[in-house]
Amino acid sequence: MDIATRVYNHKWKIDPIVRSLIDTDFYKLLMCQSVFRNKPDTQVTFSLINRSTQIPLADLIDEGELREQLDHIRSLSLSRGESTWLRGNTFYGKRQMFRPDFMEWFEALRLPPYHLERRGDQYELTFEGSWPEVMLWEIPALAVLMELRGRAVLNRMGRFELQVLYARAMTRVWEKIERLRALETLSIADFGTRRRHSFLWQDWCVQAMREGLGDSFTGTSNCLIAMRREVEAIGTNAHELPMVYAALAKSDAELARAPYDVLSDWHDEHEGNLHIILPDTYGSKGFLENAPDWLASWTGIRIDSGDPARGAAIAIDWWRARGEDPTRKRVIFSDGLDVDKIIELHRQFDGRVNVSFGWGTLLTNDFRSLVPDDALAPFSLVCKAVSANGRPTVKLSDNPEKAMGPPDEIERYKRVFGVGQQQRQPVVV
Amino acid sequence: MDIATRVYNHKWKIDPIVRSLIDTDFYKLLMCQSVFRNKPDTQVTFSLINRSTQIPLADLIDEGELREQLDHIRSLSLSRGESTWLRGNTFYGKRQMFRPDFMEWFEALRLPPYHLERRGDQYELTFEGSWPEVMLWEIPALAVLMELRGRAVLNRMGRFELQVLYARAMTRVWEKIERLRALETLSIADFGTRRRHSFLWQDWCVQAMREGLGDSFTGTSNCLIAMRREVEAIGTNAHELPMVYAALAKSDAELARAPYDVLSDWHDEHEGNLHIILPDTYGSKGFLENAPDWLASWTGIRIDSGDPARGAAIAIDWWRARGEDPTRKRVIFSDGLDVDKIIELHRQFDGRVNVSFGWGTLLTNDFRSLVPDDALAPFSLVCKAVSANGRPTVKLSDNPEKAMGPPDEIERYKRVFGVGQQQRQPVVV
Repeated sequence: MDIATRVYNHKWKIDPIVRSLIDTDFYKLLMCQSVFRNKPDTQVTFSLINRSTQIPLADLIDEGELREQLDHIRSLSLSRGESTWLRGNTFYGKRQMFRPDFMEWFEALRLPPYHLERRGDQYELTFEGSWPEVMLWEIPALAVLMELRGRAVLNRMGRFELQVLYARAMTRVWEKIERLRALETLSIADFGTRRRHSFLWQDWCVQAMREGLGDSFTGTSNCLIAMRREVEAIGTNAHELPMVYAALAKSDAELARAPYDVLSDWHDEHEGNLHIILPDTYGSKGFLENAPDWLASWTGIRIDSGDPARGAAIAIDWWRARGEDPTRKRVIFSDGLDVDKIIELHRQFDGRVNVSFGWGTLLTNDFRSLVPDDALAPFSLVCKAVSANGRPTVKLSDNPEKAMGPPDEIERYKRVFGVGQQQRQPVVV
Repeated sequence: MDIATRVYNHKWKIDPIVRSLIDTDFYKLLMCQSVFRNKPDTQVTFSLINRSTQIPLADLIDEGELREQLDHIRSLSLSRGESTWLRGNTFYGKRQMFRPDFMEWFEALRLPPYHLERRGDQYELTFEGSWPEVMLWEIPALAVLMELRGRAVLNRMGRFELQVLYARAMTRVWEKIERLRALETLSIADFGTRRRHSFLWQDWCVQAMREGLGDSFTGTSNCLIAMRREVEAIGTNAHELPMVYAALAKSDAELARAPYDVLSDWHDEHEGNLHIILPDTYGSKGFLENAPDWLASWTGIRIDSGDPARGAAIAIDWWRARGEDPTRKRVIFSDGLDVDKIIELHRQFDGRVNVSFGWGTLLTNDFRSLVPDDALAPFSLVCKAVSANGRPTVKLSDNPEKAMGPPDEIERYKRVFGVGQQQRQPVVV
């Protein structure tokens, strides 16, 4: 036994869940840089929303422990090695993806305060401040809550039960990977940071994917893991951009234009595989029908809600209608994926379009049915921008189960974006 | 990293597979003491026999490495703590199971030389000398060959593949244990030393059994693990006793009496749960029919070949015929068991007789189908007494696939013990 190591370990007051500011999704940093340039002064509120209300987070997680973890995150700053990596690494084939002014700002950053309050059996956890700062809370806040909930269950288990639990979970992940290995033209990335079981587990899953899938594994959304394991950092953009741009719109006409303004700003900054449209914030169909022509030249579309096969078919039809060749385009599926769905979608669309998968929670947190009462099953926790400069945000999505915002604003958005009846789909995770 | 530990580990010339003289089956020590008292001067030859001739052991295992492992075993002697445990521990409810004269002899013991020669794609490995010394080679020799064969496969695997391999194997063992947990009156022990995957793996399996089955897990045959994990050491007697006694018989009449002479010697030394009959060496049916009445008062019968349900039914009928109440007797199943068979036999015989299971190779070495070409599947390796005082030994068994000895001697034994047509059964492991 290494006595010194053991004594040193005992000196930790807590076991920090998030230990680095780049233990976050790559697209957060891309978006952050875009916001830092285009909307640095926007004041936003992000809020934690537990869509799985049957999980009583405030009963499961001790408030003191939660505060300790969040306080620890506030103490973090970019390390020299992390900064060097962000400045010097090649992302999506491009050097100096992150501009010097952004990096200087990021190097000086500490995350802003949080507001935590217990409400019944749930926590109200909100973050207020300037958009580029507040937005970086989303991923670590989610990861902390997911992992603390897991730890509450794991704390009750014996050493041996834990060993078997992880053996089972490892076997499950590996069996999924072995099934995916059969798909020759597969292209798949880890998108599982936010609702992962734990950092170490995500790190293990990434190594498993690399070992098992070779070049079919295109990378991870997690910057810290990408850096340490020397794999690609993967990600483009998310709903928060159109949601905040839309909230800031001063008229219905500005609102209708907001989602395209987002991509116009993005278009100037990026190219190639970073030109990925996320069309579903206010209904994919209307978004594509009303899209300006230059958007059809973009590389791909990410399908993040609604029936994925239908979403992909709409995208293919749209490209054809705009005179584009779908076989030169890319569809990225990223909503509630597991291996059956991946195989099915790959079979349906391989050859018709370039297909990619962003595999999230059911890669990095599939502990379903491994403990009694399924107490480690993942659940649907999100952390979203709920207001911008004092105005509420709205999301419609292609699945009304994922919609959010005040009812009157939802009605207004539906009218402006011409969204009619939508198909309700259960939210997986 | 603990640099000192790492440097120290590099100083080992080999990674020894057997590191203790009590890393052996408990019944070997019980029998050894009996032999030490009753037949100390008998000269025997033990020989390794690979019944799975399709496994080319000499191609898989380097002769130099095998010699190093066997030489290491010859360097072992009983440690002070091991001696204290054997002298002071309670075995089968009895203190001082091992007598002072035997312990003094054992404390001074080093294992005698071995003879190793390559023959085609197999090894000829034999041990010659006095019975109490030579007999202690059986278990470590088997364990060394099984583990070296495993290492040859594992050496080709990456670190990650190894991790998943063990995760799968652990999951498999645990799932078996969870199925067994449903059997309320189960009584099961680990008998898996000789054909285990490795020492560490057997140790893990024992811990899994204890954690998963609680009191239904009655102990392990492995003395070193029993000592370290503080569980019961389990075992009674084996075929080598009647085989050697029979080989020493000077006439057919003495031969016919030999198996009962063994148990007569045993009867004087032991009691209770150590009074277990192993009837199949020369055919269970004839053995029981011709058995002296005092044998019917013994506690149980171990079924180690042939159809186990048939063997148990014969035992129950025999007890009834001898005026004994089978529900106060014990049947120990120990041949080629896996969880389906255990559950089936338990269901068939629970309530009719006390049922115990000695679970061997498919507990401690079930790596079937976990690597390509099934290269880690266990196989049927034995190490048997083949001669005693220059005369060949014979085993008939209740399964002719397990028979051994010169053909003319086999015929003679069949005649003397009245064994007719036998049912051939595939040897599992």
